[in-house]
Amino acid sequence: MESIEARLKALGLQVPEPVAPVANYVPFIIAGSLLFVSGQLPMRDGQIAVTGKLGAGVTIAEAREACRIAFLNVLAQAKLACGGDLGRIARVVRLGGFIACTPDFTQHALAMNGASDLCVELFGEAGRHTRTTIGVASLPADATAEVEALFLVH
Amino acid sequence: MESIEARLKALGLQVPEPVAPVANYVPFIIAGSLLFVSGQLPMRDGQIAVTGKLGAGVTIAEAREACRIAFLNVLAQAKLACGGDLGRIARVVRLGGFIACTPDFTQHALAMNGASDLCVELFGEAGRHTRTTIGVASLPADATAEVEALFLVH
Amino acid sequence: MESIEARLKALGLQVPEPVAPVANYVPFIIAGSLLFVSGQLPMRDGQIAVTGKLGAGVTIAEAREACRIAFLNVLAQAKLACGGDLGRIARVVRLGGFIACTPDFTQHALAMNGASDLCVELFGEAGRHTRTTIGVASLPADATAEVEALFLVH
Repeated sequence: MESIEARLKALGLQVPEPVAPVANYVPFIIAGSLLFVSGQLPMRDGQIAVTGKLGAGVTIAEAREACRIAFLNVLAQAKLACGGDLGRIARVVRLGGFIACTPDFTQHALAMNGASDLCVELFGEAGRHTRTTIGVASLPADATAEVEALFLVH
Repeated sequence: MESIEARLKALGLQVPEPVAPVANYVPFIIAGSLLFVSGQLPMRDGQIAVTGKLGAGVTIAEAREACRIAFLNVLAQAKLACGGDLGRIARVVRLGGFIACTPDFTQHALAMNGASDLCVELFGEAGRHTRTTIGVASLPADATAEVEALFLVH
Repeated sequence: MESIEARLKALGLQVPEPVAPVANYVPFIIAGSLLFVSGQLPMRDGQIAVTGKLGAGVTIAEAREACRIAFLNVLAQAKLACGGDLGRIARVVRLGGFIACTPDFTQHALAMNGASDLCVELFGEAGRHTRTTIGVASLPADATAEVEALFLVH
């Protein structure tokens, strides 16, 4: 089976440099066969690529891209956690999706699909995850989306 | 001990048909002895039964009912995950409760009790779960509540 | 190595009395080697010590203190779960931080550091946790912050 990195490349993407946490915590922990990745923002080239809120100027396409980029940052941390080998991921167990939006916004699922669709494109059946998506008042640094993840690794 | 389904019946309830995810993810994953269920909305007969926000028209009784229905949808997924046998659930480990409300709302716990009370009514001691309840700006499809769950299964 | 309680004392702190849940759930569950602690509010002496929202009157220093107190309440539950011995905690795996704020607030990380910094001060390397911090519309009882936790115990 083609590697995750080859699939990324075919999509014109690559695993970004992992972002160092902005505070006194770590980006990932492996506990037994569970790999926890801290909530990741849509960072690109050292800054938040998509800011603002759905319902207040941000389009669904932009929010979808925010989730996609946040998931790439999740992957960057997962790769680091796995000593550089994403092939150690046996299953994407859960994604948590946090979407910054106004109270009247209702299409959170479409935004979070930016992360979920990429996840399944890359990992195939092993990428079919559970997820919880909610709309939040605001996110750190005015990010449009934040994605956290739980993986099963071997 | 009486089965979960018999207890549901005694309450005039039944496990609904599991709702198919609206996007590229799955409603549950069993990883080892942990069963993760994706965030469920208060779906009944193919539509969201309770919409709107606490503090903006929705009553606590209605939000309590929203949490109760969302938990029934969690059960539907758990039953499917367990091959139809809810008796495989050894413990309800954690419920996450997301309550759509205005910023001035403070009684989230009362709403989420709709899920927690039913959980304990059905599972007894094994249903006594940890939980985290928060108020959110909005939820997918304008739902009033969303409930996610983690179970221990055997 | 100095005990957690000795370190707390050196900081002029102590583990508070564990707060009984306000509803039909439990404050902690140990499942295998995982200890789940329900979302804790910044309770002190039987009441919420810090209420209100960032961006609407609450300062970052106050919110930082709210997170710190909420984490002390997490510790209280963890101690009870461990039969009084915090030395059974092998690793702080994950903290979830929920910060009540207005939509325009962006410095959630600074608030949540109140919990994370204390965690690392107390547990050292074993206290370096993953975390997800989000801004929420409101929290139970108008609390400024809520912190949930996952520990690895032996």
